[in-house]
Amino acid sequence: MHETKRVILDWFAATVPGSETPLIQALKDAVCEDLHDRKAQGATILGDGRRGSSRTAALVNGSASHVVEFDDIFRDAIYHPGSPVVAAALAVGETRNATGLDLIRAVINGYEVSTRIGAAVQPAHYKHWHTTGTVGCFGAAAAAATLLELSPEAFAHALSTSGTFAAGLREAFQSDAMSKPLHAGRAAEAGVTAALLAARGFTGASTILEGKSGFGAAMADGDIDWDRALEGIGETFNIESVTLKNHGCCGHTFAAIDGALALIKEHDFTWKDIEHVEVETYRTAVQVVGRSDVATPFDARFSVFFTVATALVYGSVRLNAFSAERLSDPAIRSVMNRISLAVNDELDRSYPQKRGALVRITYRGGQIVEHLQKYRHGDPEEPLTDTELSDKFYELVSPVTGRPDAEALWSKVMELEQGNVSDLMAVVRRAH
Amino acid sequence: MHETKRVILDWFAATVPGSETPLIQALKDAVCEDLHDRKAQGATILGDGRRGSSRTAALVNGSASHVVEFDDIFRDAIYHPGSPVVAAALAVGETRNATGLDLIRAVINGYEVSTRIGAAVQPAHYKHWHTTGTVGCFGAAAAAATLLELSPEAFAHALSTSGTFAAGLREAFQSDAMSKPLHAGRAAEAGVTAALLAARGFTGASTILEGKSGFGAAMADGDIDWDRALEGIGETFNIESVTLKNHGCCGHTFAAIDGALALIKEHDFTWKDIEHVEVETYRTAVQVVGRSDVATPFDARFSVFFTVATALVYGSVRLNAFSAERLSDPAIRSVMNRISLAVNDELDRSYPQKRGALVRITYRGGQIVEHLQKYRHGDPEEPLTDTELSDKFYELVSPVTGRPDAEALWSKVMELEQGNVSDLMAVVRRAH
Repeated sequence: MHETKRVILDWFAATVPGSETPLIQALKDAVCEDLHDRKAQGATILGDGRRGSSRTAALVNGSASHVVEFDDIFRDAIYHPGSPVVAAALAVGETRNATGLDLIRAVINGYEVSTRIGAAVQPAHYKHWHTTGTVGCFGAAAAAATLLELSPEAFAHALSTSGTFAAGLREAFQSDAMSKPLHAGRAAEAGVTAALLAARGFTGASTILEGKSGFGAAMADGDIDWDRALEGIGETFNIESVTLKNHGCCGHTFAAIDGALALIKEHDFTWKDIEHVEVETYRTAVQVVGRSDVATPFDARFSVFFTVATALVYGSVRLNAFSAERLSDPAIRSVMNRISLAVNDELDRSYPQKRGALVRITYRGGQIVEHLQKYRHGDPEEPLTDTELSDKFYELVSPVTGRPDAEALWSKVMELEQGNVSDLMAVVRRAH
Repeated sequence: MHETKRVILDWFAATVPGSETPLIQALKDAVCEDLHDRKAQGATILGDGRRGSSRTAALVNGSASHVVEFDDIFRDAIYHPGSPVVAAALAVGETRNATGLDLIRAVINGYEVSTRIGAAVQPAHYKHWHTTGTVGCFGAAAAAATLLELSPEAFAHALSTSGTFAAGLREAFQSDAMSKPLHAGRAAEAGVTAALLAARGFTGASTILEGKSGFGAAMADGDIDWDRALEGIGETFNIESVTLKNHGCCGHTFAAIDGALALIKEHDFTWKDIEHVEVETYRTAVQVVGRSDVATPFDARFSVFFTVATALVYGSVRLNAFSAERLSDPAIRSVMNRISLAVNDELDRSYPQKRGALVRITYRGGQIVEHLQKYRHGDPEEPLTDTELSDKFYELVSPVTGRPDAEALWSKVMELEQGNVSDLMAVVRRAH
């Protein structure tokens, strides 16, 4: 239960700032026909004075939760479960007056169903498809179906129907197009819709996953061991094995940033003392985030040079790390020029299970310190502490809501089993 | 323009009865949070006293238009363009106070864009995907973007965004699951959403069709000649080449039914006079609709024996042909037993461009008459006459709305260039 409260808290940490971005504002303008005033019935639209239906709230909040790229990861499925699942659960939970415990159950189910489907279809699925959009439909449907208290048969139909709504091409984020967060929102909306339909007797194809023209055949290589997806079900819970992001950039930079931050913490130096920084990591990271030519926020998020330099100069790589000001910051540029990057064969051999980095800093004067970061901080093997998670939460949420409301939200989530969803969302609504 | 009015009329012929089915009633119940009262602003929900946003109306009416299987076909794309395109156009047109001419332009654009994309990705796409759900997104987006008067850039972004919403697995209708009509509705909703987003500056990936992880690569065999899709654009209009369905069953039975109806018209006999009926047609038809064991409405719609017998006994194969009463009708059963089916090599050679059948009837007493039906009646090569289309329209619409409202709707569509969408939909709304 504590782990579930942590992922819900982390969802708000990603979604509250996301809900105020121009991109999500444009989405709200686009669906304004579906938004009602604050006093109307319905589900809370984050960062807005209006409410919407459970479908609309799922669409908007699900998109908002994926836009600033701080949302959680289930590594084996190459998948961000929180965005669609928690958005769908909150939207249905609020409109159905669910208790906090109901919400917790729904989120656990949503994570479990979708992470298992996601892990089964990878890596073939990710070749063309954005898992958060596709597999997210099943997670949102499972969460919504739990809150609607569907029978086992209707629950299965909700999943089947959501499966034929699955969408989201990787092409949509190979460029700077704005589509990516919409995938999470459409998945949340699809799952809610499918569950609402199943509650009214709508049936889906029971073979939607394994059928000849089903999800596996059409959207992965088709040769999928579906039995394995059910192994150990009910014994372990995948919600206990998610990665919570500590930095607002590409995950392949994380271990290097963590290593740099560990050295700052351990040794008493400033960026001005640095002569040289060597970063060694696995080959895929070098390929994906090895760009030293950084002109746009997109470049910066995918540059180990920029992000490690930011960590060394400012002590964290969060939302404001990619502002225009930071992009031209002379201190960062100066440190970037002192960083070198190489493949470390040992770290490369343990990829993708471990995603480590070795950071070695040479001071002016010749002293050398180094840190081997075996996992990404935030990975299941090295989770964020509750304090670190709270720090992340306040750092991301307080600038939007003010500290008192952020604290109230923190408390509502952390005492969720004693409360209900409407009270929780009333705190979120109050902030606007 | 006349052809466009015909497809809009045909859309109502399919959608008005569809809107009153239990399936669409369940859909309306599921999305009831998004429905407002009759007097509220918004778009008309067919068969309902309530209204909705353009997105909700597109979802519900798009689904309703595909449920009784009377919607039009663009043969080369294995695609029902009307369901998503007209649903999206009417929903956006009504909320934007568009003129009838605007609506006509939007429908033409929606058909043109989506039929060209659809034809380009076939036949590979249909292996796993339901074109009406997937390609329908582009058609709905183009129609909605036209009505929103988007700039060429924003129009392109609307198409790109709709492309990454494309969904609808064939598995969903390999059984008696209820998902199939939802594909059309979700496509209509996706296109409307994408166009509304583009109007607010939302960008999509310009390479969504041809990109490495785009629509073609992920959802067809990837090896697509996209240039061909643009050949002759602006010179011919695909909306002039659609098939309007004359019968409420699988298209592979059509030519045989048409042949039987031609013989009834030409010769003065009743089903009691029939000794034997030989049907010869192309191989695919024999494979798909060759079932003589008919227990369910699904079986009946896919049985050339049942449908030809129905035509011979009752003179048409429309909605009521698949009622419980008809399924156990002794006259139909008696005629079914006198029908034989075989592959005709010559007809098979001209498939799939031509989809013909030869029907030969032997009377008691020995007289033999035959009719070679080269095309399906309703195909572009042998279109329904205006009178036949009107007959179809009244037969399907009048039982729901009453004859006077059906006539008023007919007039509003046929005089569309002099009116506007709100007036047209007011007639539809009045009927409930």
